[in-house]
Amino acid sequence: MAPTDIDDIPGRPARARDGLFIRVYFGDGRHIGPGMIDLLETIRRERSILSAARHMGMSYRRAWLLVDAMARTFREPVVETHPGRRGAGTNLTAFGERLIALYRGIEQSSAAASRAAMEELRAGLAPLPVAAEAEVATNEG
Amino acid sequence: MAPTDIDDIPGRPARARDGLFIRVYFGDGRHIGPGMIDLLETIRRERSILSAARHMGMSYRRAWLLVDAMARTFREPVVETHPGRRGAGTNLTAFGERLIALYRGIEQSSAAASRAAMEELRAGLAPLPVAAEAEVATNEG
Repeated sequence: MAPTDIDDIPGRPARARDGLFIRVYFGDGRHIGPGMIDLLETIRRERSILSAARHMGMSYRRAWLLVDAMARTFREPVVETHPGRRGAGTNLTAFGERLIALYRGIEQSSAAASRAAMEELRAGLAPLPVAAEAEVATNEG
Repeated sequence: MAPTDIDDIPGRPARARDGLFIRVYFGDGRHIGPGMIDLLETIRRERSILSAARHMGMSYRRAWLLVDAMARTFREPVVETHPGRRGAGTNLTAFGERLIALYRGIEQSSAAASRAAMEELRAGLAPLPVAAEAEVATNEG
């Protein structure tokens, strides 16, 4: 079973989240969530699992285990490595790219479908206490 | 800040989940999720926070803290208690009912908007190992 706490990685505190947080479950414990997709996007940019792990503030082992969990979840690999190249040896596969597109699409279409309900929920929020407001301002600053 | 682990309550194991798991964040740490909404629905049925807590396998204190977190999140109370009645003294307010309807509506409209992407993701799943299949079969009874 894939680790779940990837979705609460350091540097991306839960209090800064806004809108829908979505995990996709497959009925047997397997799932994908925003932490895994963030990791895939960072690997795409860094072309390295090690460098992606550093950027996301997690250990190489943890990043590797997450990539391995995704590989075991799906029929096709999500990354391919080229051991000959030093430092920039990892690329997403076409399936890895598709996984990002599908998950981000689910996020976007869900947010669009929930807009009116979200507005009504926000309108019902209690005013924040002054101390909490100051803390939010600092975090967002 | 509201506790988050309500969404992983005993008796509703994560491995049985299927489809979208959604938490709604308000950008300042406040959020609502399926565990809170399940609790509200159970309070509505049981007309008692204590009885709802027992049915959900959590302590009265934990259930009370969750109700209190919801009360502090929104302008209006989500439950009203009638201390004179023994055992069945708690009802949802109209706002509590609206909160359930809005959250369940977000779940349903998000699932509808994500149907094609979910089908493509499921089609890409690796076959389960035999041991895992047996375990799932046992869990699903």
